[in-house]
Amino acid sequence: MSVYPTILSQTSLISRDDLTYPFEERGLQFGDGVYEVIRIYQGAYYLLTEHIDRLFRSAGGIKIELPFSKQEITNLLNDLLTQNEMASDGIVYLQATRGSAPRIHAFPADTPANVYAYIQDMPRKTENLKNGVSAITQRDTRWENCYIKSLNLLPNVLAKQAAQENGSYEAILERDGMVTECSSSNIYLVKNGTIYTHPATNRILHGCVRMRVEQFAGDLDMPFVEEAFSIDDIKDADEVFLSSSTSEVMPIVNVDGNQIADGAPGSITRRLQAVYETDAGINKQQA
Amino acid sequence: MSVYPTILSQTSLISRDDLTYPFEERGLQFGDGVYEVIRIYQGAYYLLTEHIDRLFRSAGGIKIELPFSKQEITNLLNDLLTQNEMASDGIVYLQATRGSAPRIHAFPADTPANVYAYIQDMPRKTENLKNGVSAITQRDTRWENCYIKSLNLLPNVLAKQAAQENGSYEAILERDGMVTECSSSNIYLVKNGTIYTHPATNRILHGCVRMRVEQFAGDLDMPFVEEAFSIDDIKDADEVFLSSSTSEVMPIVNVDGNQIADGAPGSITRRLQAVYETDAGINKQQA
Repeated sequence: MSVYPTILSQTSLISRDDLTYPFEERGLQFGDGVYEVIRIYQGAYYLLTEHIDRLFRSAGGIKIELPFSKQEITNLLNDLLTQNEMASDGIVYLQATRGSAPRIHAFPADTPANVYAYIQDMPRKTENLKNGVSAITQRDTRWENCYIKSLNLLPNVLAKQAAQENGSYEAILERDGMVTECSSSNIYLVKNGTIYTHPATNRILHGCVRMRVEQFAGDLDMPFVEEAFSIDDIKDADEVFLSSSTSEVMPIVNVDGNQIADGAPGSITRRLQAVYETDAGINKQQA
Repeated sequence: MSVYPTILSQTSLISRDDLTYPFEERGLQFGDGVYEVIRIYQGAYYLLTEHIDRLFRSAGGIKIELPFSKQEITNLLNDLLTQNEMASDGIVYLQATRGSAPRIHAFPADTPANVYAYIQDMPRKTENLKNGVSAITQRDTRWENCYIKSLNLLPNVLAKQAAQENGSYEAILERDGMVTECSSSNIYLVKNGTIYTHPATNRILHGCVRMRVEQFAGDLDMPFVEEAFSIDDIKDADEVFLSSSTSEVMPIVNVDGNQIADGAPGSITRRLQAVYETDAGINKQQA
């Protein structure tokens, strides 16, 4: 991972070393903020508009007023790429909190949101994308408004840690008997040619890549059904895959130690991966 | 509120102005930490041992390793009082996060917990304690492990804000038809001389003052039943009150605009308040 010298703080770029937070900061004391992770391929953002739209939806969901328009943050994020001469695969992490103020639960008066963003290298997970990954199942213990991409990520952290301790890539979350999503990705099941995934309710993050996967399926005339499935359904699945900005369209070939179908990424997953690469400009850049 | 010059950072005291956090900090990016708020009366901690015990339980619940023993943190918190020449009523805020490290969901390797504590003045809410306060009801949207006093406080923040916008003191949280607790306090209902409160399950914080209230009730031969009640039950209650380190034993005299009983703090609440003051050394100090 390279360390880039410049980050976005509020509405201007500053040196990375110059950004620190006071200890009376609502992000630090309440997790009172929202964020986005946006993929960068060969120095260009992928789904930037979609992520910025969601940042505004998340902020609105918890009544944080952002200090810029969508166009302004777009320009700032583009400046960030340029100033850092970013040309590789990476991500930008973008966060907005309710600001720094003496600690009270209710919103502090006259406190501007604190925003920062930084980019970092992140190579594509080509081996995992080719061979697939394993997952474990965990109870979904999160709050009810998972459509808000908030900084209250403790249950996600604990689920991901459980997966890592098991040697697995992800944790599949189950609530009331049904699979919602994973600790940091959406999940899909393929059965008899139909793709199933949890409806975009308040119980899951409405992934930007998820939205794209739905479009890809439409373009490819693949049936795509927003219907929750169970852990038991996974055992009989033809294919299982997940999606996120850092994992792309990632095959899951093993769940809780049980192989999915023949243990290799399935044909529908592979076709979606190919369309993803075209959509993200990956094939073109490598040509 | 006075500003004290000295705070606890990790395991030593430093000047307040010298503590800042890097932006790659798990408290700031995941709410990955735990905390305590401990009451100070006339320069002395109240229920210090109980709070430190809970800090260790919370940290254990999310597998954060604290960088000190219970005795060591007790000594440090006492030093903090002394160094700041604290003699008034106030609180200490004490927080431990999983530390500062580049952002990944799973626990970072070789990263020590970040700890800080600071004290501030906080007068007793004598008028509210005498006259009682109003509350509204809100859905309990929190995660499943509310017994852990974590920094994932966004639903609490939103509930408290809703109360404040309504001109109310607190928000009473309801899950699956039953009252769990409030946004930052435990809640009790009195009916026919019996005190009811939600059992100390994973759905509520196990309040240090709540534990004390149970002991007071025992000492006073008041029936104390750990049994959840509903919002409807509140309408017919003889008394309702809440408890927390900053609110003590606080009468609730109005819920969602409806007066509780005759709208004045009830006799059982008043008796518990009196015992609280004795236990906390308040009467003695004022004598």
